[in-house]
Amino acid sequence: MTITITAFERSPDGGKGLARDTRVRWALEEVGQPYDVRLVSFRDMKEPAHLRLHPFGQIPTLEEDDLVLFETGAIVLHLAQSRPGLLPDDAHARARAIAWMFAALNTVEPPILDIVVVKFQEGDKPWAQERLPLVMDRIRARLVQLAARLGDAEWLDGAFSAGDLMMVSVLLRLRPSGLLDEFPGLAAYVARGEARPAYQRAFAAQWAVNAAPPPAA
Amino acid sequence: MTITITAFERSPDGGKGLARDTRVRWALEEVGQPYDVRLVSFRDMKEPAHLRLHPFGQIPTLEEDDLVLFETGAIVLHLAQSRPGLLPDDAHARARAIAWMFAALNTVEPPILDIVVVKFQEGDKPWAQERLPLVMDRIRARLVQLAARLGDAEWLDGAFSAGDLMMVSVLLRLRPSGLLDEFPGLAAYVARGEARPAYQRAFAAQWAVNAAPPPAA
Repeated sequence: MTITITAFERSPDGGKGLARDTRVRWALEEVGQPYDVRLVSFRDMKEPAHLRLHPFGQIPTLEEDDLVLFETGAIVLHLAQSRPGLLPDDAHARARAIAWMFAALNTVEPPILDIVVVKFQEGDKPWAQERLPLVMDRIRARLVQLAARLGDAEWLDGAFSAGDLMMVSVLLRLRPSGLLDEFPGLAAYVARGEARPAYQRAFAAQWAVNAAPPPAA
Repeated sequence: MTITITAFERSPDGGKGLARDTRVRWALEEVGQPYDVRLVSFRDMKEPAHLRLHPFGQIPTLEEDDLVLFETGAIVLHLAQSRPGLLPDDAHARARAIAWMFAALNTVEPPILDIVVVKFQEGDKPWAQERLPLVMDRIRARLVQLAARLGDAEWLDGAFSAGDLMMVSVLLRLRPSGLLDEFPGLAAYVARGEARPAYQRAFAAQWAVNAAPPPAA
């Protein structure tokens, strides 16, 4: 069985590992599943061939036999539910790990993504500079709650799970902003995630694509 | 086995069914699972007793025997995976239905929730009026893609699933804005969701809580 994922031909972050294929690569590495990558350009992503895989014209996608999946969360969950390594065996603990996946994507990430809106999509607007601290405060409010729940634990709920994979991935987006440094417990949690060999391999794989010299003109 | 969920003592929407407990009520009705509701005030939600159930101090939560879950997506997925009625039997179709749940929550809903930011959280800011059309255009971009994928189909991927439940719930938020009327195919899709007896029961149950006369002072 072959798995093929899609990734940016050239990630906007230049290899920082913040594009969403890194999350899927990480999950694939954690479960020990080899995979192929098909690189797509921004133009490819809006073409009918890619829209058939991903109705919103984004990456990543997953193709596995005749299964086609889009949405990072769904792809990671599919990998976690079909292979050992990313979810506990106990049914209740499994449901809780999945809850942390949703929390990462729906409760913690949306205010973080607002940084992209304020800095880039609306970076030229007169209100951008005044809005940024409001956005940062909304993120802080979530991080206070998350740090309180994590406490001194190594991971969010027992052993490392797909919930931690997603939460660490989401928090990594904050590193350039410096916000993570205000929460040493969360910064250490993110560092534990990054130290995992599976993350290291995933990061290196996306780096090889995005930090390579641009193709000759 | 008893299931207890939490809901607002008094929803900010006054009974329009947009609070997230409606999504969980709908799922419970679709799978034919009776449930109890514990109403919580805004003050209760920030207290340690509730934060033990929900680290971010929100509703809904689910308690079932010794399982405690938070995050609407996780609760609906748990109900859908543990009871028949909300996911297809075929493994691939199941994974695709779950992908639509994530798409609803992570790709379609975030730009929609920005309406709340611009109108309420930043409603008093000088930029609010000028930002609103930008927010609306980001939502439109998603709706164009969603409408293209749905086409003339009744539901997003075969029979009605938890993916449709979540997408209809997310789109319902748009009704007050009038945006849904620009997409007759999506408006009809939402109307099909609302017409389901399970949705009707869920809506009526939250209405009974939120549209009742306020408690005597």
